[in-house]
Amino acid sequence: MSTKVFKKITVTGCSDESYKQAIEAAVAKAGESVHGMAWFEVKEMRGAIEDGKPCEWQATVDVAFKVD
Amino acid sequence: MSTKVFKKITVTGCSDESYKQAIEAAVAKAGESVHGMAWFEVKEMRGAIEDGKPCEWQATVDVAFKVD
Amino acid sequence: MSTKVFKKITVTGCSDESYKQAIEAAVAKAGESVHGMAWFEVKEMRGAIEDGKPCEWQATVDVAFKVD
Amino acid sequence: MSTKVFKKITVTGCSDESYKQAIEAAVAKAGESVHGMAWFEVKEMRGAIEDGKPCEWQATVDVAFKVD
Amino acid sequence: MSTKVFKKITVTGCSDESYKQAIEAAVAKAGESVHGMAWFEVKEMRGAIEDGKPCEWQATVDVAFKVD
Amino acid sequence: MSTKVFKKITVTGCSDESYKQAIEAAVAKAGESVHGMAWFEVKEMRGAIEDGKPCEWQATVDVAFKVD
Amino acid sequence: MSTKVFKKITVTGCSDESYKQAIEAAVAKAGESVHGMAWFEVKEMRGAIEDGKPCEWQATVDVAFKVD
Amino acid sequence: MSTKVFKKITVTGCSDESYKQAIEAAVAKAGESVHGMAWFEVKEMRGAIEDGKPCEWQATVDVAFKVD
Amino acid sequence: MSTKVFKKITVTGCSDESYKQAIEAAVAKAGESVHGMAWFEVKEMRGAIEDGKPCEWQATVDVAFKVD
Amino acid sequence: MSTKVFKKITVTGCSDESYKQAIEAAVAKAGESVHGMAWFEVKEMRGAIEDGKPCEWQATVDVAFKVD
Amino acid sequence: MSTKVFKKITVTGCSDESYKQAIEAAVAKAGESVHGMAWFEVKEMRGAIEDGKPCEWQATVDVAFKVD
Amino acid sequence: MSTKVFKKITVTGCSDESYKQAIEAAVAKAGESVHGMAWFEVKEMRGAIEDGKPCEWQATVDVAFKVD
Repeated sequence: MSTKVFKKITVTGCSDESYKQAIEAAVAKAGESVHGMAWFEVKEMRGAIEDGKPCEWQATVDVAFKVD
Repeated sequence: MSTKVFKKITVTGCSDESYKQAIEAAVAKAGESVHGMAWFEVKEMRGAIEDGKPCEWQATVDVAFKVD
Repeated sequence: MSTKVFKKITVTGCSDESYKQAIEAAVAKAGESVHGMAWFEVKEMRGAIEDGKPCEWQATVDVAFKVD
Repeated sequence: MSTKVFKKITVTGCSDESYKQAIEAAVAKAGESVHGMAWFEVKEMRGAIEDGKPCEWQATVDVAFKVD
Repeated sequence: MSTKVFKKITVTGCSDESYKQAIEAAVAKAGESVHGMAWFEVKEMRGAIEDGKPCEWQATVDVAFKVD
Repeated sequence: MSTKVFKKITVTGCSDESYKQAIEAAVAKAGESVHGMAWFEVKEMRGAIEDGKPCEWQATVDVAFKVD
Repeated sequence: MSTKVFKKITVTGCSDESYKQAIEAAVAKAGESVHGMAWFEVKEMRGAIEDGKPCEWQATVDVAFKVD
Repeated sequence: MSTKVFKKITVTGCSDESYKQAIEAAVAKAGESVHGMAWFEVKEMRGAIEDGKPCEWQATVDVAFKVD
Repeated sequence: MSTKVFKKITVTGCSDESYKQAIEAAVAKAGESVHGMAWFEVKEMRGAIEDGKPCEWQATVDVAFKVD
Repeated sequence: MSTKVFKKITVTGCSDESYKQAIEAAVAKAGESVHGMAWFEVKEMRGAIEDGKPCEWQATVDVAFKVD
Repeated sequence: MSTKVFKKITVTGCSDESYKQAIEAAVAKAGESVHGMAWFEVKEMRGAIEDGKPCEWQATVDVAFKVD
Repeated sequence: MSTKVFKKITVTGCSDESYKQAIEAAVAKAGESVHGMAWFEVKEMRGAIEDGKPCEWQATVDVAFKVD
């Protein structure tokens, strides 16, 4: 018998440039408190608008990390 | 470049009075272990029944807080 | 071996006051034909509008009751 | 205070002709055991295939009826 | 660089005959206030029941039209 | 042949007191630009948090009104 | 013209051993009040935890039976 | 032990007349490359609009066929 | 008592370059007819293919704006 | 730049014993026509009932395999 | 007034034997860092394939525990 | 009467750079075995993490192509 366990945390990254940067920020920040991050899943994409233009790209991701 | 990150935790509040109180209890309890709470999203509403009447109002919310 | 079985019925309660009252009405009415009600799950919230104002709060709940 | 309660039952009608007929059959059959039917909601549409052609149109509907 | 923009409006058509007619009525009515309609997406199908029979077929569609 | 058409608009009401008031505000505001509002459907419930407490109740509803 | 109608009831089976047993219990109990059961659909799988271990496996199924 | 396996393919049928004809076209075309088709499931209904009227009915179905 | 109301409109932006540009086009076009845009939510991402390559990136967003 | 591509096929396995066996049958059968299978995702669990008991366990899975 | 609060964490258990074992591993591991676990909800079932056979059963569950 | 049929296949593209490249890779690879690709729909966005950073962007798309 062999088992393995991952936990998932939900993180929303916000960037004034792109969803890619928002996701990278979310993952980087998540990595400050957990180890062994393995994958992420995009759950939601939203954004803020200012002066008639998107000014913030917000991506919510589930980040999974291995629990030893 | 400017980024910001929020984490979300899932909390189920239960009240014998109302969903509003259940949500307030959930947020208050969440606030005991995290700072910078910014918004919540209602995910599920259920309840317990006793003697043929709703006796508990259960609201599950995602609570988002800013990570420094 | 130990098993237990619950049935669920779907009930829509309507109240001219609040969702809480709509749910209580739904559960009360369900209780006239079944015994052993244990929990409910809110599935939908709608309402009727008259003269530009909400005049009826409609909550659809799944009510679960134990089957002996 | 004024309240009203509806129950919903789930019925799958099958017709060799059309979804319309399948829904009508489902509602008609539901009406044999309940009174006060008020509305229905289409939940699923499927069908059987025989000899390479749809031979049965199956519509699952939730039928709501008033409970006195 | 080339861009194009569509808006979507949500319309519920009701017919005493069929979903097809309900959708056609919804699209026709939508066309009275917008131009350049290009496609629609069926979002919900419901109906009213009277005297134990479906008496109204209600289809909710998202109608997309080009914005110049 | 008889047809009827409704349009739906999406409105988010925010209240510092309750979801009920948020919905009433949304419907009231919607009524300033459309006539013949008939029903609403709750689509999302969220809220803002300040100083560790819910400070705003936000309800997003689809409001349907008859088109003549 | 040929039509056939099925009804669906929702049943939650609970077992201290497995989901399979939970489903079998749900179907068996459903069979005490209806005839002509034809198929089931798993809608939800949950469980209770006691002393840090799953102690009950709960499966909610829709059970369909033919209505004559 | 006895097992059976079905594959599902996704097909979008388009008709200038009705969803029924769109589904029949989808199933017929699917039948040109696979054998043993057993059932289908409607996944999406959309349509094209021209000159303010629905001009094409598009139904996406999953078609299941037995694999020997 | 304090209330605030937002309306949401659904807009599909299409770009031959990227989803980001598609969203920016959608928001910009929406801004031609409404004021006070505050946020957007990505609802769907699709695209057109020509000569075996994606040639258009289509993003459907809900755009929310404050109603005074 | 480095890219990799997987295809997914949808397969329904049926077993008279368990969902596990149904999934294994589905994967095994899928493996007769494709290579490089890497993962699967359970999409639906249903079953047939005979003489008041589940007699067939049906699991629909998406099977992903690498495309060279 | 009486309130109670639960938190939910998301855990993915992986087993080379069964989903049951995967869930038990997930719950056991979750129990190493939290107390008062009360119930779990199955959210997703996937698996890895090696040499044409399922080699790992992966179950993602939400685990709820009471917060004092 | 006029009909047209499209098939859809599901493809997951993976890129170490961006979702755009992942989608382009998926569509390009799909185009090696089918002709007449017309549109795609993004179904899922995930990614792999290595050394605390996203290292692979994975996009699952449904690719539709015309069947003659």
